[in-house]
Amino acid sequence: EKASGGSTFGDAPMVQSKSMSDKKWTAIQDLKPNLAGKEVLIRGYLQTTRLMGKGAFTLIRSSLYTAQGVCFESPTIPKEMVKYIGALPVESVVDVKGIVTVPNDPIDSATQKMVEIQISELYCVSKASPNLPFLMEDACRPDFEQEADVGAYTGEEVAAADGLVRVGQEMRLDHRWIDLRTPANQSIFRVESMVGTLFRECLIAKDFIEIHTPKLIGGSSEGGADIFELDYFGKPACLSMSPQLHKQITAACSGFERVFETGPVFRAENSNTRRHLCEFTGFDLEMAISEHYDEVLQVFSDLFIHIFDGLNTRCAAEIERVREQHPFEDLKYLRPTLKITYAEGCALLREAGIEQDDYEDLSTENEKKLGGIVKQKYDTDFFFMDKYPLSVRPFYTMPCPDNPKLSNSYDFFIRGQEILSGAQRVHDPDMILERAKALGIDVDESYVNSFRHGALPHGGGGIGLERVVMLFLGLPNIRKASWFPRDPKRLSP
Amino acid sequence: EKASGGSTFGDAPMVQSKSMSDKKWTAIQDLKPNLAGKEVLIRGYLQTTRLMGKGAFTLIRSSLYTAQGVCFESPTIPKEMVKYIGALPVESVVDVKGIVTVPNDPIDSATQKMVEIQISELYCVSKASPNLPFLMEDACRPDFEQEADVGAYTGEEVAAADGLVRVGQEMRLDHRWIDLRTPANQSIFRVESMVGTLFRECLIAKDFIEIHTPKLIGGSSEGGADIFELDYFGKPACLSMSPQLHKQITAACSGFERVFETGPVFRAENSNTRRHLCEFTGFDLEMAISEHYDEVLQVFSDLFIHIFDGLNTRCAAEIERVREQHPFEDLKYLRPTLKITYAEGCALLREAGIEQDDYEDLSTENEKKLGGIVKQKYDTDFFFMDKYPLSVRPFYTMPCPDNPKLSNSYDFFIRGQEILSGAQRVHDPDMILERAKALGIDVDESYVNSFRHGALPHGGGGIGLERVVMLFLGLPNIRKASWFPRDPKRLSP
Repeated sequence: EKASGGSTFGDAPMVQSKSMSDKKWTAIQDLKPNLAGKEVLIRGYLQTTRLMGKGAFTLIRSSLYTAQGVCFESPTIPKEMVKYIGALPVESVVDVKGIVTVPNDPIDSATQKMVEIQISELYCVSKASPNLPFLMEDACRPDFEQEADVGAYTGEEVAAADGLVRVGQEMRLDHRWIDLRTPANQSIFRVESMVGTLFRECLIAKDFIEIHTPKLIGGSSEGGADIFELDYFGKPACLSMSPQLHKQITAACSGFERVFETGPVFRAENSNTRRHLCEFTGFDLEMAISEHYDEVLQVFSDLFIHIFDGLNTRCAAEIERVREQHPFEDLKYLRPTLKITYAEGCALLREAGIEQDDYEDLSTENEKKLGGIVKQKYDTDFFFMDKYPLSVRPFYTMPCPDNPKLSNSYDFFIRGQEILSGAQRVHDPDMILERAKALGIDVDESYVNSFRHGALPHGGGGIGLERVVMLFLGLPNIRKASWFPRDPKRLSP
Repeated sequence: EKASGGSTFGDAPMVQSKSMSDKKWTAIQDLKPNLAGKEVLIRGYLQTTRLMGKGAFTLIRSSLYTAQGVCFESPTIPKEMVKYIGALPVESVVDVKGIVTVPNDPIDSATQKMVEIQISELYCVSKASPNLPFLMEDACRPDFEQEADVGAYTGEEVAAADGLVRVGQEMRLDHRWIDLRTPANQSIFRVESMVGTLFRECLIAKDFIEIHTPKLIGGSSEGGADIFELDYFGKPACLSMSPQLHKQITAACSGFERVFETGPVFRAENSNTRRHLCEFTGFDLEMAISEHYDEVLQVFSDLFIHIFDGLNTRCAAEIERVREQHPFEDLKYLRPTLKITYAEGCALLREAGIEQDDYEDLSTENEKKLGGIVKQKYDTDFFFMDKYPLSVRPFYTMPCPDNPKLSNSYDFFIRGQEILSGAQRVHDPDMILERAKALGIDVDESYVNSFRHGALPHGGGGIGLERVVMLFLGLPNIRKASWFPRDPKRLSP
């Protein structure tokens, strides 16, 4: 089949697996001067195209990489071909064939600066609508100011101090498939994917196994109010707020001892902030302990250091591409992870003139202030706080043996924001019932029963993946770290 | 703190992280003759305990491993201690200290046959209720017959031909935390965890990245009827039946090119069979193609061979433990994977005297029959069938370019049961609308729009994790491969 324009250009017939040729595509990432003089075939998005004199200048993109292709009228290149290329809508998918040359000066606008393609053929594989909701170049501009931590969204489009347009968060998410093409977003989600790889890699090496717990459960998972409810074949059901109860059952009551899960977590919270989502990805672990939940904390400390080190070494290029659009300072962290008690944290706040009671919960504001104080004092953006007041923790939290007002529980923080909550759990069925009663929780009977047939002492925690990515990269809004964010106002795309 | 019984035995105080000692626990798995004469401390479930003369004989279990501990009255062992041990409820968690000895004859009842522990101290860490819902030894018995593929459950308890009790599926699931302790179940879920590791390992090496798509979506995901619906802040929403639409958007329209996801999938199907669940784990992938979806099939072929090879080498012990309870024959598979067309499959059935039209869907029964025919003809339990009739595939399936009644789609089978469904997808927005209209599907607008701004030709597929595990291990019921199965009659534990 011929393309519409002729033998060297035009709209290609639909790729419908009619046949398989021996064509070889080269990845744009691999276009380097060692290919000079060779003919290559590339496929990518037409990021820009413009006519200059008798030539067309294009930028072709695949994932994080772009290359320049040029096409000049000549005995073998008809005028129509140059015009066709110059008139193609940007963001169309094109196949480009040509000879690689090395330009005299590096090409600033491309990531592949030391090569250029002398286009001999160009076919359009998928034609974009000429009316994009926003321009990629606007979507790629560096942040002109740090967004404040209030409200979920900025407006539609923002005219910045530099006079250039920035695309608002809402507009981006309405057309997420275009927004995701920016180098910053290509990088953010490659980083996020790597967090998953590093999380599992570390835990599998420590003999954890992966579990898959049900998201559909009878009754409420932890007695919270913010649950999504639904009808399950005539019975009331709800969506799991965390794998908490089932991961405890598997680790402590079913003999698996060390388990982890990565999966969706649902919160019907009507919070329209920059750090809440109604559906996010929980990275959970639960493990048997011999004597003390410090054994769990050691695993978490190793785990986060493995993740941070791994991102810095394996995603260095991606991190830099994020920084071009969203400037941030590298995360500072200690080995082993800095540990302070809740009481010490409260004292640090009071020393700085901030009101904070040892037995009352920390507000988001005070958490951030404490993050700043700790950063100044210990030079770390990452730490955890141990021995939270019992009254602010869920019913399954083990009380502290030395002080009945405290508990064997902890939170981890990055840049002053919580990314992990965990504890030693109660493994005694009578104590579970007693704690649930004290907190007025109607706890699931089979959960309590599972501790009646021999249960291992255990502890664990749950990590919010999107928060880890957001805070590691210093992003201003958790929606930038969620593929397709869900919040009270957004259920699509 | 002292244990209740005295200095060498009794109920231990609750493990509450009061302090951390320098005690070292030895894993039961590591109890081997090289430790003879050494003192060890182990923690595990008390699988059996019985008094014989002046001694107590115990079997202590951790995950897949058991060891025998014995305790005889002596100047240092009081009679009360022997009695205490003999009277402990089975399935209690105990700490056992003692000297490792090598018995004259191997201990048949233990996995650690060449060692025995001369118990000097024994404390109960978590006491089981003396009334277990069923006995572990009954739960561990080999299947006495292959269950038929009808109905979700057997009865409560089954008296087998050998006169010994088998525990019914329903009873097992009501007390899943005990059922999961059997060596077969410990093994099944270690195999399942390994499938996840192997799946990701293979795809990451092929440049796929992990995505997390929303499970809460507006409208129905693929126009099916079997969806769970819920209220989302006053708007109608439903649970995703697969990451299908979002994985296409990320791979084909957002420039990520190769993506995978592992996560829950929801089907409100009122099917009470041995192979359906209302919530299962989907292993999905989607990838851009250059010319032909054979590129996808190559990835799937490599992927499954990697998974099967990996299980056989890395989970050999677990596979044998499953076989002890659920006898099965090793999976046979070819390299590369056997491929036949749908028409060829139908012809094979007709040759065997079975009615099957080339353009009608295969019944479950005919799928199984075909699996048998293929096994006989090609000596493989694993194959795929290509070019399904267009009429039996979803609206997003690319029609076959050579025959308008066929499509560029395929299913994969293990032992005659489908474990994967996939296809080249339509990447042209007008064709998507046309196909949706032809099938009467009300397709989400943003999904169609995502293909209007440049889309890569692409294909992929979705694998049911529990089915892969069930069929690889030849298990009689998918509930045996689901941690906490959800079906129309079961929402707990």
